[in-house]
Amino acid sequence: MAVNLSSAAPTPSTALLTDHYELTMLAAALSDGTGERSCVFETFTRRLPDGRRYGVVGGTQRVLDAIAEFRFGAAEIHHLRDTRVVDEATLSWLADYRFQGDVDGYPEGELYFPGSPVLTVRGTFADAVVLETLVLSILNHDSAIVSAGARMASAANGRPIIEMGSRRTHERAAVASARAAYLAGFATTSNLESGRTFAIPTAGTCAHAFTLLHDSERAAFEAQVAALGPDTTLLVDTYDITHGIETAIEVAGTGLGAIRIDSGDVGVLARQAREQLDKLGAIQTRIVVSGDLDEYAIAALRAEPVDAYGVGTSLVTGSGAPTAGMVYKLVEVDGRPVAKRSSHKESRGGRKLALRRHKPTGTALEEVVYLADAPAPERGEHDRELQIPLMRKGQPVSGLPNLEESRQRVRQGLVSLPWEGLKLSAGEPAIPTVYPHQEQA
Amino acid sequence: MAVNLSSAAPTPSTALLTDHYELTMLAAALSDGTGERSCVFETFTRRLPDGRRYGVVGGTQRVLDAIAEFRFGAAEIHHLRDTRVVDEATLSWLADYRFQGDVDGYPEGELYFPGSPVLTVRGTFADAVVLETLVLSILNHDSAIVSAGARMASAANGRPIIEMGSRRTHERAAVASARAAYLAGFATTSNLESGRTFAIPTAGTCAHAFTLLHDSERAAFEAQVAALGPDTTLLVDTYDITHGIETAIEVAGTGLGAIRIDSGDVGVLARQAREQLDKLGAIQTRIVVSGDLDEYAIAALRAEPVDAYGVGTSLVTGSGAPTAGMVYKLVEVDGRPVAKRSSHKESRGGRKLALRRHKPTGTALEEVVYLADAPAPERGEHDRELQIPLMRKGQPVSGLPNLEESRQRVRQGLVSLPWEGLKLSAGEPAIPTVYPHQEQA
Repeated sequence: MAVNLSSAAPTPSTALLTDHYELTMLAAALSDGTGERSCVFETFTRRLPDGRRYGVVGGTQRVLDAIAEFRFGAAEIHHLRDTRVVDEATLSWLADYRFQGDVDGYPEGELYFPGSPVLTVRGTFADAVVLETLVLSILNHDSAIVSAGARMASAANGRPIIEMGSRRTHERAAVASARAAYLAGFATTSNLESGRTFAIPTAGTCAHAFTLLHDSERAAFEAQVAALGPDTTLLVDTYDITHGIETAIEVAGTGLGAIRIDSGDVGVLARQAREQLDKLGAIQTRIVVSGDLDEYAIAALRAEPVDAYGVGTSLVTGSGAPTAGMVYKLVEVDGRPVAKRSSHKESRGGRKLALRRHKPTGTALEEVVYLADAPAPERGEHDRELQIPLMRKGQPVSGLPNLEESRQRVRQGLVSLPWEGLKLSAGEPAIPTVYPHQEQA
Repeated sequence: MAVNLSSAAPTPSTALLTDHYELTMLAAALSDGTGERSCVFETFTRRLPDGRRYGVVGGTQRVLDAIAEFRFGAAEIHHLRDTRVVDEATLSWLADYRFQGDVDGYPEGELYFPGSPVLTVRGTFADAVVLETLVLSILNHDSAIVSAGARMASAANGRPIIEMGSRRTHERAAVASARAAYLAGFATTSNLESGRTFAIPTAGTCAHAFTLLHDSERAAFEAQVAALGPDTTLLVDTYDITHGIETAIEVAGTGLGAIRIDSGDVGVLARQAREQLDKLGAIQTRIVVSGDLDEYAIAALRAEPVDAYGVGTSLVTGSGAPTAGMVYKLVEVDGRPVAKRSSHKESRGGRKLALRRHKPTGTALEEVVYLADAPAPERGEHDRELQIPLMRKGQPVSGLPNLEESRQRVRQGLVSLPWEGLKLSAGEPAIPTVYPHQEQA
């Protein structure tokens, strides 16, 4: 997806976006020869965030890009030598490292449920273990944001949402969040770097500061319309909204693109604003509302004359679920299923595949997570295999879905949910996960 | 703090980590001449996250570094021209941009409360408005993490905490989170890139995958001890903890550095493990516990024989408050105080300074936020001005506190809180904010 990346500064190596213990494990495994064992690592979540009914996979393409950049250059090796993280033999191995294994997974934008094998990495232990943190960081962040964003897009019911949360999250997480929001179905973002890196449409006009900068609200509106044209969005709530709207139409004319209301009871204010705009003859002027909106506030505004939403904090913080909670677990060694078995059942051994069963109407019925080495479950006409090949021998598979296609997939996924799956209230996963080959733990 | 940055890949420009509307405001302000007006922008939070009693400033040094990198190179200008974000006159202005104003603020690691003027940017409107998103992204993220981390460090009461949350947050946010955790008082981090970028001590040994990779737990422990020495930490809960501890001591001897327990009721398990280790003669072997710990879990483990904590998710997600909620508001234009005044009082106009009053014992009493242009409040012997100069004419002031000094400041700040300020339960800010020159809104 890194459409214009070539025009940006060189990307720093991703190789140290890694937990110390991955390299110490590597060193120990290289030294006793187990590093060469053929392994399968599976990325999945044991449960959805509290009350969530579905998750949406985000970040797959970013994972593939980050794996390609996962190279230990002179600077990285120097740091690891300097701080004695690993021995010289391991440093030599790392200097030559490039991932040579296979990756399969759910396409980006696909729905997931507890136990869904979202990403499967196959390779030697040494090859695959070093990717754990990087893979999880990206999938856990991006999936959390796109999952929250999908709830908002679904609550907005076709009305456009502008993502404007950059200021409420880490400056680089903001870029990924803007991408995840777009994937979820948001219309535009305020984040310029995401516009460059991912070719996402960006938008923005003016903040309260611009009005305060001027000697009067009128002077500010005049300056904005002169610079950006009458199709701009005027922010009318710096002083008094009714007066602000009046001035806005006086300055821009009835062809004004939009007004924005960023504070107060935006539902009531939108209704009043619509009446006032219509009376003034500005019947085409749209109303944008913003200010601490989340999916519940968006849903509550459905009956109000709102044309677009601006959403910030709640999107970039995952609306109460800032991380997707996925784990990267070793499930197979040299063809033998492995699993942790101490206090409680932690995971299921063996490489898994997944099938989603649907009714003939297209409504999803269940997530079938089955062992790759056992006989495959019967596949009905309306069922769908969920994993696709993503990398072969360390190279990305060609023809993977682009961001627009993944965005389309999110839309289709939401349509396929049983109706209660789209409820915003807390509940169980929209469809159950079943394990036809469930072992005794 | 970017100690070894020179050995890393070139940092990409931070100039597009910006909201679209900052540049459209800039274009409009350049075109009507108001862009040259002398302005003061203030960064503060209206309230602490629900129930929090204090906040800790994080990210100040990262903000100063990011401002230095805030330059529009050919690639950035090309993107803005291509996407028609602003006109050619504005592009020329941006191509020459480098921040030339002044920045004052709370030193990194200082406590803050509602209304504290954490960072004040002075310059022309044009100079200062473009920094809004970048400044807020960094301060909101890092302050959220260090504020949560300080609660954990204070609950740990001197026992070391290892930060291991990288996998639960955006891959670059993870680096900043590791730094914020260290600032908060954590002992080490798992994140290697933060070790390189900020010279923070990193640590790690092995995951469950390493045990599962081997034919037996014994074989895994032998390999680990052979590679990392007996002073390592053996993870004993892959199969059966009692058996795991027995094997660990058989393999490593009674000089084993530590065992780690990552699942189950870690309090009970730590007590059993301590007894078992002592009986086996491994009285120096430490016990590290991890697995979904937060400040409450850490506090609940105070009476248990735990030597160190590993903390992940709760740290990097701000333990329920993933963003600090700071805003960047225009408060003064050409010496005239300005403030938004619509539905409810949004902010106070005029540049503010702050003084923290203390009892003679050193306990903090109140946060006095006063207008810079009004007579300064009387300053007692134990009171302290909170803002320091950070940049002058676009250049960082020399001799700013380094990360170790800021870490020390966090410790001192926590000691200065009234005792109820350290309670983990929800409550009011530990000290009130008072405004001696409070205007009528």
